[in-house]
Amino acid sequence: MKFGEYAKTFIPQINEAIKLLFQEKLKTVKNDFLVSYYTELRDYILSGGKRIRPLLSIGAFNSLNEDHNDKIINPSVGIELLHNASLIHDDIIDKDNFRRGEPSFHYRFQTYHQKHNLEKMQKVDFGNSIGIIGGDSMYFLGLEAYLSNNFADPLNLKAINYYHQAFIEIADGVLIETEMVNRNKVSLKEYIEMISLKTGALIEKALLIGASYANIDEKYKTYFSTYGINLGIIFQIVDDILGTFGDSKITGKPTDGDIREGKWTCLLIEALNNLEIDDRILLNSLIKKTNITNSDVSKVKKLFLKADVINSCKKQANKYYEEASDALKELSVVIKSSELEFFTDLLDFVTKREY
Amino acid sequence: MKFGEYAKTFIPQINEAIKLLFQEKLKTVKNDFLVSYYTELRDYILSGGKRIRPLLSIGAFNSLNEDHNDKIINPSVGIELLHNASLIHDDIIDKDNFRRGEPSFHYRFQTYHQKHNLEKMQKVDFGNSIGIIGGDSMYFLGLEAYLSNNFADPLNLKAINYYHQAFIEIADGVLIETEMVNRNKVSLKEYIEMISLKTGALIEKALLIGASYANIDEKYKTYFSTYGINLGIIFQIVDDILGTFGDSKITGKPTDGDIREGKWTCLLIEALNNLEIDDRILLNSLIKKTNITNSDVSKVKKLFLKADVINSCKKQANKYYEEASDALKELSVVIKSSELEFFTDLLDFVTKREY
Repeated sequence: MKFGEYAKTFIPQINEAIKLLFQEKLKTVKNDFLVSYYTELRDYILSGGKRIRPLLSIGAFNSLNEDHNDKIINPSVGIELLHNASLIHDDIIDKDNFRRGEPSFHYRFQTYHQKHNLEKMQKVDFGNSIGIIGGDSMYFLGLEAYLSNNFADPLNLKAINYYHQAFIEIADGVLIETEMVNRNKVSLKEYIEMISLKTGALIEKALLIGASYANIDEKYKTYFSTYGINLGIIFQIVDDILGTFGDSKITGKPTDGDIREGKWTCLLIEALNNLEIDDRILLNSLIKKTNITNSDVSKVKKLFLKADVINSCKKQANKYYEEASDALKELSVVIKSSELEFFTDLLDFVTKREY
Repeated sequence: MKFGEYAKTFIPQINEAIKLLFQEKLKTVKNDFLVSYYTELRDYILSGGKRIRPLLSIGAFNSLNEDHNDKIINPSVGIELLHNASLIHDDIIDKDNFRRGEPSFHYRFQTYHQKHNLEKMQKVDFGNSIGIIGGDSMYFLGLEAYLSNNFADPLNLKAINYYHQAFIEIADGVLIETEMVNRNKVSLKEYIEMISLKTGALIEKALLIGASYANIDEKYKTYFSTYGINLGIIFQIVDDILGTFGDSKITGKPTDGDIREGKWTCLLIEALNNLEIDDRILLNSLIKKTNITNSDVSKVKKLFLKADVINSCKKQANKYYEEASDALKELSVVIKSSELEFFTDLLDFVTKREY
């Protein structure tokens, strides 16, 4: 089954499972502010997203079962909540007020602050405070996916273990990224290690959760890991390209964030690798500015294009594409052809995506 | 066994279990910044604290077993990590740079920022960013207490359920508290509901986790709940008193934070209940100021004393003391006398504590 078809089949069920999780929580809440809070949290996660992570859990589970089984839908959403939790906290850290063309979670509570004329606390502080707790809530609501479903205790504990590992690895990735901003040189190897944690881990764990609910044989797990981490690396490299050269109307994000924050993207690393010394010094000085202007951003983009970074990064992505493909070949012995097609097509989609 | 003796017996083991948890994590970490980060996280939690929550888990477990059993030590620290996670995020929200006389977690990374001359990101932003992720890590490391220990899967899943509930309830409590700051009137009933969530839930869950590892009979659970929530309410009322009228050298906290932030403490509510109309209007206007001066803080404290709020709040605490005592009487049928003494003595300690 092609990725698009798989998505069309399962996304409505995934969104229903997410809705149900929040509905159950909202049933228990009486305080007016908490009702607004959990409603915003629900609307935030339902406002968009490609649902690739739950689709991967469902795909991995189905790939090892004779028939499709709806049991996997509820636990598949855990990792999606974990993903959204980390986005909520990232947007506070990066001071991004928009995500998927919609207000980011903490920014929604700046708006709430204005609407309700809250006086004692400042708008930005109020938004950030609710945002910090908002991410926390999303992490813990994600756990619920493994606490009430139709699988046996030991399988749920395994899933919680993966959930836990996924979080630790994302956090490590984000920490390394945050500290890296202050460095003057980062190698491609360090960058790949960082994004394997920041982006790869979650995609890998989504697959492993699905596969372990289907009692996968230990020896095949490693191929799901390899496929997942490499898919994640490609996803992030393409994200870097779209983050600066994408169409913000399609991606829903401004195209100057990474440059302003001085993030070590594939683009920046490859530009510093490809440019001559003078341009390299200029690029480094622009990126390190604490108050970067619009004209500085344009200059950085021009230097990126001069260094042909889009092609360099795509070439890098192709290396990981090969590794992911090889892992799929190994898996083809045990998984169903319909899901093999889904995994293969998803790999193509992620590599070629424009949003 | 008296509380002091119980603490002396188990706190070294509790601290060892906490150390071990971080040691295991540090073993897997190679990146220099991550090493600093997890070391600070470990030092933060080991810098102090009364360890009441793990002691309660241990007490509840031992109270239902013939012999003491060290199996409970490792899972007992989960809730302590959850507690510290919420402190880390609270300190960012409240902009408190010190806790227990030591730098708060996010503030440690402002110092790190200065020491390492980080240029690209601002000091406060860097501290807050690492602090947000720091709280997240502490939440997830707490989960580990239930993922690797010597209990059976279904018991660990039950504990994770309580851990999960504890988090949701604290978050709800902190959210209600954050939003309340902007209100002009809060009733004692609303305040008690808020602190039952913010402080009571964690103490209750620490007991329920210990009791459920000892396979407690369903019908006695409710008495552990009642004892725990009331102990938590008393703890918070006393915390409110010490927060403004305690000796900051002993408590390790400044005594103007609650007043500056306009928090709805027992003191403020009772003052508004007890004062005449003119003083009430004055107090309300002082508390609502966005830029409150030292002289304003002194005026608020004087109004508090005029309203005899310390005695009013102690009287409130006594009501909850009675409820907790009654629950202990019900438990005395099933629990060992050594732990009954511990729970009774702890109730006295929490009511009379000065730090």
